[in-house]
Amino acid sequence: MGAPSRRIAILAEGHFAPMEAKTAIGLLRYRPEQVVAVIDSRHAGSTAKARVGVGGTIPVVGTLDATVALGADTLLIGIAPAGGRLPPAWRPLVEQALERGWRVVSGLHTFLGDDPELAARARSHGGTIEDVRRPPASLGVGLARAAQVDALVALAVGTDCNVGKMTAVLEIQRALERHGVRAAFVATGQTGIMIAGSGVAVDAVPSDFVSGAIERLVVDAAADHDVVLVEGQGTLHHPSFSAVTLGLLHGSCPEALILCHHLGRTRLALGSDRDDDGPPLPSLAAAREAHERAAAWVRPAIVVAGAFNTWDTPEPAARAACEDAAEALGVPVTDPVRFGADVLAESLMALRGRRTTGRTT
Amino acid sequence: MGAPSRRIAILAEGHFAPMEAKTAIGLLRYRPEQVVAVIDSRHAGSTAKARVGVGGTIPVVGTLDATVALGADTLLIGIAPAGGRLPPAWRPLVEQALERGWRVVSGLHTFLGDDPELAARARSHGGTIEDVRRPPASLGVGLARAAQVDALVALAVGTDCNVGKMTAVLEIQRALERHGVRAAFVATGQTGIMIAGSGVAVDAVPSDFVSGAIERLVVDAAADHDVVLVEGQGTLHHPSFSAVTLGLLHGSCPEALILCHHLGRTRLALGSDRDDDGPPLPSLAAAREAHERAAAWVRPAIVVAGAFNTWDTPEPAARAACEDAAEALGVPVTDPVRFGADVLAESLMALRGRRTTGRTT
Repeated sequence: MGAPSRRIAILAEGHFAPMEAKTAIGLLRYRPEQVVAVIDSRHAGSTAKARVGVGGTIPVVGTLDATVALGADTLLIGIAPAGGRLPPAWRPLVEQALERGWRVVSGLHTFLGDDPELAARARSHGGTIEDVRRPPASLGVGLARAAQVDALVALAVGTDCNVGKMTAVLEIQRALERHGVRAAFVATGQTGIMIAGSGVAVDAVPSDFVSGAIERLVVDAAADHDVVLVEGQGTLHHPSFSAVTLGLLHGSCPEALILCHHLGRTRLALGSDRDDDGPPLPSLAAAREAHERAAAWVRPAIVVAGAFNTWDTPEPAARAACEDAAEALGVPVTDPVRFGADVLAESLMALRGRRTTGRTT
Repeated sequence: MGAPSRRIAILAEGHFAPMEAKTAIGLLRYRPEQVVAVIDSRHAGSTAKARVGVGGTIPVVGTLDATVALGADTLLIGIAPAGGRLPPAWRPLVEQALERGWRVVSGLHTFLGDDPELAARARSHGGTIEDVRRPPASLGVGLARAAQVDALVALAVGTDCNVGKMTAVLEIQRALERHGVRAAFVATGQTGIMIAGSGVAVDAVPSDFVSGAIERLVVDAAADHDVVLVEGQGTLHHPSFSAVTLGLLHGSCPEALILCHHLGRTRLALGSDRDDDGPPLPSLAAAREAHERAAAWVRPAIVVAGAFNTWDTPEPAARAACEDAAEALGVPVTDPVRFGADVLAESLMALRGRRTTGRTT
């Protein structure tokens, strides 16, 4: 995972668009040097940046064959469909990749490696299948051990799933590193794991072991970092994913929460990655209150900053919305991709500074 | 599952004691007609009732061989160790049972059927392995559909795990049936599934699908019942199991909560079924507030009754504690096993009556 020699073709057939191809876009934004092409025959001839705003001139191509000339050696499934199965139309492409002896990287709930036909094809052609959602072989229950680490632990929470929690945390990590702070990124979802090269897809872990799985990652990361940034998942108000959210919250035992929101979204995304089919979104205040309250059942945490995803809002309105939210919440709020993550990083450094001061006096 | 022809030997070697052998005791209380013996060599010659207070004269024996004369044809694993693996000392007994062509019923997290050696032994001797925790093959995410059913849905919640949620719900089911109410019991844990003959062990379900798995059970049960009683798991304050608890709450979308508590317990049970190794237990008021608040993130619910497990408290003190709690909470509170579940059943019937009246006027 994440080895620089990887030359990735991202499979996003029929879905290479903003808000649809979350995994593809994550890779393009944070590991563009590893990506040689995106496959979506609807847009062959275009570029990544033209389609989704990131990835520069990385070409969009129509077939797997077209990526061969570009030196691809890895096929990466670039979407996360609800339900988590391989769309039937993509199966031939996966088979072709394995027949070429490539590595196939998948974050689908249904493990490709458990498909006897795909597994056999991989074996006979020297291909490999990497199911990044596959839970660790050894799992234990959470015991709030992450509350004991010296590092400052921060978790991204939000008003919905798919609002930019992973992105916020990755941007904050970069900003902290620029300030000389040793900041770890703990990946908890498929895209994060593909970017980080490690992590656990907590939503695939048996529910008894969700908090235990994240606890172990946080404790390990805390050993050699000043700040541990945990990728969040879902929201407590979401009828599909609230269990994952609470398991993360009680497993990582953060002191600090980053409240994430997709500006303009008004309804929860249910049953798909669309944002317009569910009950009303919780307000920022309601989301903050819910997550702080739920955290306190095991270990108190406070929202120290807000991260807005404003990609589809004009800039002046986006800036104004961040300012309004900062005023209302009493914490810094910004779009870390658009306006920089320094203010968010500084809120964590300030909290850490107060802790350290408190300890030494 | 639950077929009357079963003749069960319960394996509880080294653990046949109150609070340790939860599964064994559940079977002995609710399906004694199916149990021919309990295996615990420490107490061979004793009876179930003498050891754990239920199961009458069902004998405790020291070996699997001793159960053969009693006509056993099923070996049922009678404990649920934290971590969920088969204690090594029990493996020979499981092997013996399979070699006799018996059925082995297990609720362990580690599936016996996935053990190549045990699976092979079963195949070659005509034995069968039933892993009741194995998640359904087909899973979907929860979409709050259980909030739409006509039946009254009630969920048992509590101050900790292992406080008597399943028992409370089973006693309420019996009481409702005595009143002519069609009441379903939806099992969500291994023991409940063994008793009911169906259900889903939600803690073994990948966390993304916890709410979806319980939603489907509730919707199905609601089709031909007036009241759907859902077995609860864990508590929102528990660092190991809160994710399971919230998934159940948001998947079953109850209107009514039954607040369960083991009288006298002061600390959360962490890492084992013991009750003395964790942080302080939430108060009844705190547990009520947390569960009502968390329910409201998806669908509002209220605590309508309290169920105390008072087995290790003298009767006058137990009665007084129930009365005090009823006064403090403003809802009926009793020990349904010791003092009867009618008052709890009546609180549900009253809520259902108010609903029905509300609809027709």
